Amino acid sequence: MNFDLNKSIEILERTPIVLEVMLRHISTDWTTANEGGDTWSVYDIVGHLIYGEKTDWIPRAEIILSKSQNKTFIPFDRFAQFEESKGKSLSQLLLEFKQLREVNLNILKSKNLTTDDFKRKGIHPELGEVTLAQLISTWTVHDLNHIAQISRVMANHYKLDVGPWVKYLGMLK
Amino acid sequence: MNFDLNKSIEILERTPIVLEVMLRHISTDWTTANEGGDTWSVYDIVGHLIYGEKTDWIPRAEIILSKSQNKTFIPFDRFAQFEESKGKSLSQLLLEFKQLREVNLNILKSKNLTTDDFKRKGIHPELGEVTLAQLISTWTVHDLNHIAQISRVMANHYKLDVGPWVKYLGMLK
Repeated sequence: MNFDLNKSIEILERTPIVLEVMLRHISTDWTTANEGGDTWSVYDIVGHLIYGEKTDWIPRAEIILSKSQNKTFIPFDRFAQFEESKGKSLSQLLLEFKQLREVNLNILKSKNLTTDDFKRKGIHPELGEVTLAQLISTWTVHDLNHIAQISRVMANHYKLDVGPWVKYLGMLK
Repeated sequence: MNFDLNKSIEILERTPIVLEVMLRHISTDWTTANEGGDTWSVYDIVGHLIYGEKTDWIPRAEIILSKSQNKTFIPFDRFAQFEESKGKSLSQLLLEFKQLREVNLNILKSKNLTTDDFKRKGIHPELGEVTLAQLISTWTVHDLNHIAQISRVMANHYKLDVGPWVKYLGMLK
């Protein structure tokens, strides 16, 4: 196992700035294109990250750490961003994500979590028992997953433009 | 086709800053781990990007735009970074990449390329005829590809730590 709270925070605190550098003031061609059908655009993905800050990671950590007998998480809505982001610009979403993440990392740090806390458990509605360490690890990997997804969605905008090189660019689909 | 020089430059000029934000002063656990066997670490990938700046993109554009009859590119060495990066810290590599990219983008912009230039061709040693537009598109996608790869390599460092969530995190392998 490689989990370490400080290592996780290193990723979690960088993600809003990574997204800001990648996306702020970039042509909307890059951020509104999706990968076809009902796949997500960059704009949709940033909205999804915001909704995670509001309803997923810290609220679930609070359930794990609470004294309540009921440790079952509220299911996460993977499609909430389609309503929640309406009328907002990407710049607004990036700022909102940065602010929410900062608040959430302050909450996380304020808990002064111990090795025993990391072993405490909650009940995921589909996956069953999960520990706090697994939740924070997943939060971390989820960030990296969506940075990779954003890169891939943007790359696919140029899928036809690379010509014969498509053969070497495994991420294009 | 979606290729547009300015859209490409938007990505190409952001990549060194994206990598700096993601990686500078982060724990070496994140940057020295690879995905097993002879796969690349984050450190190796940054070295590969540097070598591309030195020998791939602009040198190949120069061949396409030259008056020479011989339009065949010099094959790219995908393993050069293992020698070239030796003794350098990741911070040094990130700075070197940023400086080389800046010089290369200045060269690219100074050429005042026209629509006709983008159709001009070179010979890739394995892929055959390729256009300048395809070369610049590939340079762009190549950046995004390696940002995604860096995210995935880092995420895999936590592969065992996410527990049952691995089921939802398709990028972990």
